[in-house]
Amino acid sequence: MNKMKDEVFFGEGMARVKKEYPELYNAIVGLNEAVYAGKVIDYKTQKLIALGINASASDDRATRKQMVSAMKEFKITKDEIVDVLRVVLLTSGMPPFTKAMKILYELME
Amino acid sequence: MNKMKDEVFFGEGMARVKKEYPELYNAIVGLNEAVYAGKVIDYKTQKLIALGINASASDDRATRKQMVSAMKEFKITKDEIVDVLRVVLLTSGMPPFTKAMKILYELME
Amino acid sequence: MNKMKDEVFFGEGMARVKKEYPELYNAIVGLNEAVYAGKVIDYKTQKLIALGINASASDDRATRKQMVSAMKEFKITKDEIVDVLRVVLLTSGMPPFTKAMKILYELME
Amino acid sequence: MNKMKDEVFFGEGMARVKKEYPELYNAIVGLNEAVYAGKVIDYKTQKLIALGINASASDDRATRKQMVSAMKEFKITKDEIVDVLRVVLLTSGMPPFTKAMKILYELME
Amino acid sequence: MNKMKDEVFFGEGMARVKKEYPELYNAIVGLNEAVYAGKVIDYKTQKLIALGINASASDDRATRKQMVSAMKEFKITKDEIVDVLRVVLLTSGMPPFTKAMKILYELME
Amino acid sequence: MNKMKDEVFFGEGMARVKKEYPELYNAIVGLNEAVYAGKVIDYKTQKLIALGINASASDDRATRKQMVSAMKEFKITKDEIVDVLRVVLLTSGMPPFTKAMKILYELME
Repeated sequence: MNKMKDEVFFGEGMARVKKEYPELYNAIVGLNEAVYAGKVIDYKTQKLIALGINASASDDRATRKQMVSAMKEFKITKDEIVDVLRVVLLTSGMPPFTKAMKILYELME
Repeated sequence: MNKMKDEVFFGEGMARVKKEYPELYNAIVGLNEAVYAGKVIDYKTQKLIALGINASASDDRATRKQMVSAMKEFKITKDEIVDVLRVVLLTSGMPPFTKAMKILYELME
Repeated sequence: MNKMKDEVFFGEGMARVKKEYPELYNAIVGLNEAVYAGKVIDYKTQKLIALGINASASDDRATRKQMVSAMKEFKITKDEIVDVLRVVLLTSGMPPFTKAMKILYELME
Repeated sequence: MNKMKDEVFFGEGMARVKKEYPELYNAIVGLNEAVYAGKVIDYKTQKLIALGINASASDDRATRKQMVSAMKEFKITKDEIVDVLRVVLLTSGMPPFTKAMKILYELME
Repeated sequence: MNKMKDEVFFGEGMARVKKEYPELYNAIVGLNEAVYAGKVIDYKTQKLIALGINASASDDRATRKQMVSAMKEFKITKDEIVDVLRVVLLTSGMPPFTKAMKILYELME
Repeated sequence: MNKMKDEVFFGEGMARVKKEYPELYNAIVGLNEAVYAGKVIDYKTQKLIALGINASASDDRATRKQMVSAMKEFKITKDEIVDVLRVVLLTSGMPPFTKAMKILYELME
């Protein structure tokens, strides 16, 4: 995993894991690398998929982190995120959709 | 929604809903159209996101349907699906990943 | 809990639990009684809520059992079950809705 | 959908969706209308089912919104909500039950 | 259930349930007793299993309560909790793992 | 990861992943090793936690695999599994409990 992805992907909590549980940290880094070394689908699309999954799970924290990360790394736009959340609405219903829209609007301010 | 998407997306069950609950059917068609009329992200990418969400939810039936549909509509390859499932592994763990890989291998035979 | 509810609610598996783990069985019966002894909402409405929850969780087995049980106990109709599943569609998305509709149509045949 | 339901159901976030993504908003309104136009089960019962589903999914935000909405629209009482949450306890366990009870007690103060 | 377990397990919310819905409270106490009266696995291991389940469900509140309770009752250490969360990572993915690690680090401060 | 754990843990599907996506396979093996190299909690307890998590998620396939694996590796008894499932009942409700009990009884025959 290159440095940039590393910094963007892992939050502060992971810095402590790296220090205190290095073998676990290394396994996570290895997994992350293998996951985002997709053969055909590009990294950005994979991150959009991750955003859709996190939003569908109604996970505020992970949804916010994925949005922030995608904005930083790809200059992803509001309309792109809404296109992901449209799929969340169809597959997972109104509550995760409105929750994620709220997070998006907060980040936009 | 154009005909092709309609036939691929909706299974036989929806044919009965159309006949018996037409107002509900129409609302679903309207939702489906609005969801897949994304402004920026193309339809294929949105379907990959839907696949990721269904697989993460460990939903056999919806996962299989999304895979079959994506193979028919986009000639999506095994490697592309595996790239989606890599993200499922990272965000949702081993059980939904191995379940979806099993479905993929069955479809490949 | 009166006998009829008991027989309808608990499947064959619970008969073995009763014999082999009586203290656990008694706790479950006690919980079941306290749950369905609602003060205001009647038993039938509570069972419809349980059906909605089970269908939203995409749990085939529990969804089928709740439908069968509601048909036996209350002569619940197809339209009533569809009214429950409409709510499942809005709150939980297409996959659990279509799965539950499929179960309903199978039971109707 | 009549005006009252509209105001109660959709939060502030949806006002922006209406303006910025009108075709998506219209599809959601259409879905909402088709869902709550149940043939047999009345609107209040459908909202109680929605509350049960949201609480079972441990979704604080949606649970609170459903409770507030049901109190405003139907003058629903604490005992009625507890009767819904009893079903949540049986079908989904202690954590979603205690979380929803906490929300209820906060709203009661 | 002995007093100590009772106080640790049930939060303030349950005190009101005890007073206002005593029959429901008694059923919950009965269930709790039957659950933790395991025949073979000791109480501490059962609580670790409960922690793993709550963390996998990404339930902040229940995860925090289980950690606090396990620290009070068993003087459970950080390393023991991390060993539970390792399993959460493998079975349920990065988002619930990082969320639970964050809660753990906050409790440690 | 020693050979025995490897064979027990990974099903046939993983054999193909090993051949076709070796870098992904290696990352999974690395993760699995880091997870089950707990510092304090023994491997058997970690597997019981995994069983509890899989059963709580109502995942038939993963639940069955964990039970079979625990029976082979640790000669785990029915009563031990029931002690895990008691916790599933309390934290996740009746449907995942009865589903897992059914799987257990089938495996016992």
